[in-house]
Parts: sequence; C-alpha cells; structure tokens
Amino acid sequence: VPGAPPPREMLERLGQAAAAADIAAYGAIRGEAELIDAYAADIGGHYGWVPGGDEIAITAGCNEAFVVAMMAVAKAGEAVLLPSPWYFNHEMTLRMLGIRCVPLPTHARRGFVPDPEEAAEILRADRARNPGSPVRCIVLVTPNNPTGAIYPAAVIAAFSKLASTHGSWLLLDETYRDFRAGAPSRPHALFENADSRRGLIQLYSFSKAYAIPGHRVGALVASSDAMAEIAKVLDCIQICAPRHAQRALTWAIPALADWRADTARQIARRAALFAEGLGAARGWTIEAIGAYFAYIRHPFLDQSGTDVARRLATEIGILALPGSYFGPGQAPFLRFAYANTSDEGAMAVGSRLAGLV
Amino acid sequence: VPGAPPPREMLERLGQAAAAADIAAYGAIRGEAELIDAYAADIGGHYGWVPGGDEIAITAGCNEAFVVAMMAVAKAGEAVLLPSPWYFNHEMTLRMLGIRCVPLPTHARRGFVPDPEEAAEILRADRARNPGSPVRCIVLVTPNNPTGAIYPAAVIAAFSKLASTHGSWLLLDETYRDFRAGAPSRPHALFENADSRRGLIQLYSFSKAYAIPGHRVGALVASSDAMAEIAKVLDCIQICAPRHAQRALTWAIPALADWRADTARQIARRAALFAEGLGAARGWTIEAIGAYFAYIRHPFLDQSGTDVARRLATEIGILALPGSYFGPGQAPFLRFAYANTSDEGAMAVGSRLAGLV
Repeated sequence: VPGAPPPREMLERLGQAAAAADIAAYGAIRGEAELIDAYAADIGGHYGWVPGGDEIAITAGCNEAFVVAMMAVAKAGEAVLLPSPWYFNHEMTLRMLGIRCVPLPTHARRGFVPDPEEAAEILRADRARNPGSPVRCIVLVTPNNPTGAIYPAAVIAAFSKLASTHGSWLLLDETYRDFRAGAPSRPHALFENADSRRGLIQLYSFSKAYAIPGHRVGALVASSDAMAEIAKVLDCIQICAPRHAQRALTWAIPALADWRADTARQIARRAALFAEGLGAARGWTIEAIGAYFAYIRHPFLDQSGTDVARRLATEIGILALPGSYFGPGQAPFLRFAYANTSDEGAMAVGSRLAGLV
Repeated sequence: VPGAPPPREMLERLGQAAAAADIAAYGAIRGEAELIDAYAADIGGHYGWVPGGDEIAITAGCNEAFVVAMMAVAKAGEAVLLPSPWYFNHEMTLRMLGIRCVPLPTHARRGFVPDPEEAAEILRADRARNPGSPVRCIVLVTPNNPTGAIYPAAVIAAFSKLASTHGSWLLLDETYRDFRAGAPSRPHALFENADSRRGLIQLYSFSKAYAIPGHRVGALVASSDAMAEIAKVLDCIQICAPRHAQRALTWAIPALADWRADTARQIARRAALFAEGLGAARGWTIEAIGAYFAYIRHPFLDQSGTDVARRLATEIGILALPGSYFGPGQAPFLRFAYANTSDEGAMAVGSRLAGLV
C-alpha cells in the first residue's frame, strides 16, 4: 500500500484518459501497443535487454498476473515450489487452483534469501515422493514480500539454472523492483541471456512504483511461445486491463522516472531511520530489511505473532502483520511495512515498541 | 462491443473520479460501499428484492466474475453443465481450470431456449457415467450470447428447481439484461424466493449497459455464505476492481436510467429493422434474435460457418462470427451483433447478403 498519492500530473493524466471516449471501448488483450512499447524500453533500461512486443502482457494488477501465469504453467495436481514465508495470495491461489505447493523454507541466518542447493535437494526428494505430480514452476519474489530480502543476482541465476535442469519454469515477481535504492542497479542478468530467458516469466506491478493500486495495472514478460498460451488465459479472465491507466502510464514511464527514483531514495532513508530507531527496543531484531518491508523478530517467545500483532495494534497503535500469515514456522516474526509510514513514524517505532511490557 | 460511446456526462464523471487522489489507493475487495448500495437498489428495481451489502461483489469485468464463480463452486475434475452453443470464454475457462464441461444442446426448433427436461436427463445419465465427477453448477446466459435467446421466467425457474434437486449451483449470467426491451419487465423470479436465492449466483456486466468495457466493471450477487468464499478468490485475482469506474457508476445507475432505456429501445428497433431487412436474403433464416444478437442459419449447406464468415468479411464487408466458434454442431449458423451497427446498416444486411453468390 503506497503511503503517498501519485504526483498531481499523473492524476491529471489519469483523469484525461478516463474521460476519453475511445478508451471506453474494449482494448487489446495483452495491452495498449503504446504502453507495451514504453514498458519494453523500461525493461531495457533495467535489465539490458528489450523485449519484443509479443513478449509483454499488461494485466489488471499483479495478483492477476500471478494467477494467469500459474494457470498457464501448471494443472491441478501438479506442483509449484514456493519459498516460505510466502506472499499469502500466492499460496492461496495455488490452493484454489488445486496446485500443490512445495515449500522451500528460507532462514533468518541467511537473511531469508533462499538457498538453491536446499531447493535442489527438496526438488529431488519431492520428485521421488510424488512422481505423478511434477513441480512445474519455481516462484521467487524479489525484493521479497514479506521479508524485504533482495536476492543477489547470483542466487537468482542459480535458481534459473536449477529450474532449467529440473525442466520447470522460473517465475520472478519483481513488484518492488523500483525500491531497490542502494542495491546493485541491475537486479539480475536473466534477461540478457537467451537460455535463461526461455524459461522465465517475470511479473511487475505499476501499483507500488506509481502509487496507483486502485487503478489495477501490472505486467508480465515471457517468451512469445509462452505468451501465446498466457494470452488465452488473459482473454478469459480480463479481456483487457483497465485502459485509462494504461494510457496514463505510457506517459508516466519516462516522465516520472525522476519522481520514482526520488520516492525510492525517500523510502531507503526511511528504512535507515526505522533500523536506527529499532535499536531502542530491546529484544526486537531486524532479520531482513529492504525495498518496502522489514521482517522483525519479536521478544515474546511464549506468544504467537498474531497475539503480539494484536497487542501492537491495540496497546501502542502500530499495525504490523504477524509472520504466521505468511506461512508455517513464522510465529517469531512480524512484517513491518515501513515504506507506508512517515520518517518520524519510522524512527519512533523502536521507542514505542520499548513501551510494550 | 457497444456500438456507441457512453454519454458525455458519464465520461466527465469517469475523468473526475480517475483524477481523484483517494481513488488511487487500494479499495475494498468486494467493491466500493456506495456502488454496492446503488447496485442493490438497481437489483431491487429489476427483480423485486434488494440484496444485502454482503451479497454483492463488484468485479473487474464479468469474465472475471465467471472465472471467480467457477473457482468457488467447482474443483478440477468436477463438472459444470453448459448449454451449447456457449459463450466461448466460458468453455475455455472451464477447460483451463480442469473442470469438465457437460454440454446441454439447445435447438433451433425451440429458439435455442434450453429444455429443463433434457437437462435433467443429461444430468441423470452423466451422474451414472461419472460418479466421481459431480456436476457442481448449471450455467445459463440470458439474454444469450451467441443466440440472442431470452429465456422465459418459467424456464429459468425450472432450471433453478433442477439445480436444487441435483444439489448443484445455478449461475445466471445476465450481462445483456438491460437490452430486453419488449420482453416482460421482470427477467425471472428467483431473487424473490429465499429457496431459489440460496443456490443462485447471478452475474452482470456494466460494460454493455453503460458502454464502458474498457473500464472493466462487472458484478456478482450470491448468498452471504457463498460470498465469503467468493471474496477469497476475488482477493487473489483482483484485490479490488478499478475504483474510478465504480465511483462514476454509483452516480450513473440512477442518473442514466433514462439513457439506458433509450439505448435499449434503439437497439430493439434495430433488431426489427435487421429482421425486416433479412427478408431480402433468400435462404438466410433468423433462428433466434434478442437483446444484442441474432443467430442466423446460412444457406450454404456444403460450407462451414468459418468459410461463410470469411466470405462475408472479404466479399461484402460484413463481420459475423461463425457458429463453430460457439461449440459443436454450429456450422450452419452465424452470429450477427446487430446492436453494434447503425439502423441503416442493420436494414441493409439482407440485400447485401443477397449479393453473395
């Protein structure tokens, strides 16, 4: 949930586009040609490779992009490897589609970055145990929700190789990509290589970077072969993504580049203030932090994360999500979305937590 | 595809709403409270029963509403009864979800209105043949796409009873409800009765009636129990429907009532002109007509509907969809969307078809 509204100029463009008669009609299934061009150039700037127009789809939000990707790569009874803690909607989506979720635990000692060797071991064991239910896809969310961990390019490359060896897809959800201030400028090198590109499905959300979640626009990049199948799913689910926001975004991708960079710097500064402030709260530990979120160990060993989160909300007015919402074994943790508060709010969290008895 | 843009005032409201900063944030999963209220009143006017706020969901288009409903009522390996010819996206959606489609043929001799007794027979036979794959839902689209048939209230009531006896849901897709000019004012009585309401999921699209398909808004009515499950699917797929259009529609539902009635009258007049004009084309027969579409038998017994449609497009510049797109056994038919042409265009179709050798 972006903490601030989009800039005034963006709101004006959204308004103008929504008032246009032509935009009220149906649009192309995979999105407006102009936005696809602008987004291809954007991808080029971030990853050093420019996708073709038939390798991009614009979706009604990034959750929908995930559902569509899963429907394209796996059938009910097949499986997907999902690092835990996970984004709860991902796990819910798999369950609703009858796709088996194979958890890949990530660990505080590794900053919640998944381990490709542990993944290989889990895949080997799962294949032996469930020969009739192959793992069709490995899902990575980086920067991560809920932990905030930003996966190193080398880790992402190792997972790409693992997926290829295993004959499965790699889905990379980079919803929070624009908030990597301080991290290396290129998130990964998978797009630069034809081999790693072939098995890759990459997701992105315009909701966070442009602060427009209410307008519902996300994006999906995949090979043209995969896209031909994905487009059929998109036709069934969305027909087209909301068109007015697509038109405004065509303008915004280049025009708001500085605004996005500035927002990312602000949020990175807030992360530093949050980390500094948390020092005042004895027993509260930052296990991972980055992009939008911090994943925090709380000091109440005998209380579930849900109980602790309830106390935070009712006793000191702080909203954090219990780790248990994000998967098994997460009771010691809470997710803080520091990006959504003010600098003052971020800095004060520690002293407020210290007041919790 | 609506043939004309929405009225100027609607475009202004869409523009104002999209330019508002508050609407850029996430909204409620099941929709804006104000739109839910306005839509509840609208349902009340059409069906003599006003749903509660927890019995309505606003969706990112009516295709999405169908996907969501199917995910809520049936698992992969279970089945759905679908009258044929069908709306192709419905059949595609079932196939993609691994839900078995049990066809219920409809016949020209009955004006393509499905027969509840034939359906009962098919359900009986299917249950005996596929005991492990129960039919979880009966789907009816009325007014129908592709045939244009408007199902009588008594037929809809019989299907509701059949669904109840069989222990399955009844899904009623009323996307074209507002174009029933000339038909009885109440489409059916299912909402008036608590028993028939319990197993009912009703879909509606704002795309056609308000001429705003590019803004992606549909609606779903179901019991609050069913809705609690449906809301989980909605959270995974859409989080929320586009909010700006929801705000504009809150105004439009009462404010554009006259405009909608006028549009429906215009389209009904166009249906009459189309039917009259078609008399000039020997061998072309209207098998069903209503709301938006006419389902036409072509005279070329030795040619597939696809070939005939190609000839219409290339030789006389008329776009019609081949019946074969809508299911098995439909080669003799073409779907004409007369609602999308002008009065002159509708009237001239017959003489232009007569020119096809």
